[in-house]
This record gives sequence, C-alpha cells and structure tokens, in this order.
Amino acid sequence: MNPQNGYDVEDLTVGMTAEIAKTITDADIVLFAGVSTDVNAVHMDEEFGKTTMFGGRIAHGMLSASLLSAVLGNRLPGPGVIYMSQSLRFRAPVRPGDTVHAKVTVKEVLVDKGRVVLDTICTVGDKVVIDGEATLMPTSRKKREAAGK
Amino acid sequence: MNPQNGYDVEDLTVGMTAEIAKTITDADIVLFAGVSTDVNAVHMDEEFGKTTMFGGRIAHGMLSASLLSAVLGNRLPGPGVIYMSQSLRFRAPVRPGDTVHAKVTVKEVLVDKGRVVLDTICTVGDKVVIDGEATLMPTSRKKREAAGK
Repeated sequence: MNPQNGYDVEDLTVGMTAEIAKTITDADIVLFAGVSTDVNAVHMDEEFGKTTMFGGRIAHGMLSASLLSAVLGNRLPGPGVIYMSQSLRFRAPVRPGDTVHAKVTVKEVLVDKGRVVLDTICTVGDKVVIDGEATLMPTSRKKREAAGK
Repeated sequence: MNPQNGYDVEDLTVGMTAEIAKTITDADIVLFAGVSTDVNAVHMDEEFGKTTMFGGRIAHGMLSASLLSAVLGNRLPGPGVIYMSQSLRFRAPVRPGDTVHAKVTVKEVLVDKGRVVLDTICTVGDKVVIDGEATLMPTSRKKREAAGK
C-alpha cells in the first residue's frame, strides 16, 4: 500500500475486486443535471419520460459511470492512482430510486509498464446497466523506494 | 429533426459538429463528489494536491466527461437519442477555474443500423484533456413515419 492507503501496482493481482453501491435519488439527478448541463427531458420531465420507450424519467448514464470512477479512485487501486482510460457500454436504464452497484475486478497487471486493467460493471439487481474496462496507473513501491521516499 | 428538436439519423452527415463549454468551479467539484461518492483527496484537499504531480486539486475526470454526454444528448444528435457506448482517454488534468470545451463531430453514420459514431473531445485552451468516441442510436424519421407517428 502507498501512504494514502491505495494499492501499489506491486500489490495487485488478477481477480482482486471492490464494490460500492449508491441509491440514485432525484437529488442526484438534479445535481448531476446542474454540474453536467445535461437537462435532457428524459432526465427531467416525468410526463415526457412516460411517452418514451423507458416509461418514465431515467438517470444520466454518466451518473452511474461516475460510481465506477469512485470505486477505482477510492478503493481499488484507490488513492494515488491515475485514471488513464475508460470504456462504457450503456446496457440498460437506471431509474430514480434504483440502487446501482459499481464493481471493479483486476483483469491484467502490467507491472513493468506500471498499469492495471480492470473490468468495470454497474448492476441494478441482477441487471447489468453498464459494462466496460478501465486502465489506470497505480503508484509503485519500487519507484517510491528508488526515489528514496 | 424529431418532435423534440433532435436530429433524426437521416439528418446526420459526417463532419457535423457541436460544442458546449463550462467553467469547472469548486461548486461543481463539491457537488460531483457528493453525487459520485468520489471524495478522493486529489479532488478535495488542496494541501494534498500540492504534494502530487498535479501541483494542486484537480477535477474528477468524469465531471468533464459528463459535458460530452450533455452535448450529445442536448445538441448533436440531441433530444430523443439513446447513448450506446463511450470511450474516454484522460489525457491531462482539469483544475478548478478551467473552462472545458466539449466538442463532438460526426465520424460515421450507419443509417441501416440506426447508429451514429462521433469523435468526442474535451479541451482546456489548446490542450486536449479527454478524447474518445461515442456510439448512439438517434431517432429515425423513416421508423417514425412507418409507425404512423
């Protein structure tokens, strides 16, 4: 572990996993609309939402994706890590009141390159709502020691 | 255009482009931390930020990415579109006070499949902070007319 309690790349092994869960409330949707400027009717207007294939308002896809960022940055690899890339497939809608579970699993550790690749998935109940993959640059104990820190 | 003022897939041509810009303030970072649960010190703690390679606090990468979602959902293709997938490469940090320009450009229109692929890029000044690609399912005039709507 690094001094911020995050994993060094040397600590990581394939199959390690971490998860957070959050209930997506109307407050989240309103705040996310303000922060993102995404005020699309499908997020804000229940009457309009009822006329769509979704049958009601849905949360912003990037709102659920932000939970993946949170579990990567706060749990695994955790503090000190640098986010390099993320792919996201939006598979199903998330509705106000749904509890999203964001789970990441180490898929590949490239110690020489100082990179880790994780499977990243969001679920609501048994349904996958987002899947994808993230690449990050964790801290390195070897580099820290070489720098005398 | 569809009844919500979004582009139908039949309206889209390669090279069409749209952009939004937003200044990322401390308020955005605090609200995004609450919504995402990502309270990593690099976003919240200026003293810690100063000890990192970034030299100070940085905004959440997904906060800038959310502006891409906004321009796709609100401008091009705009209302009625369904977000299928997004890739993101985080190329450089965004700091409180930076103005992020989120720009999308139509790269490929697959009318038969009802899909459009766009290049998606966020810049601060001349610097690319995020690049990637999005695939979406716009509304279709042909389908709407076939359904008698």
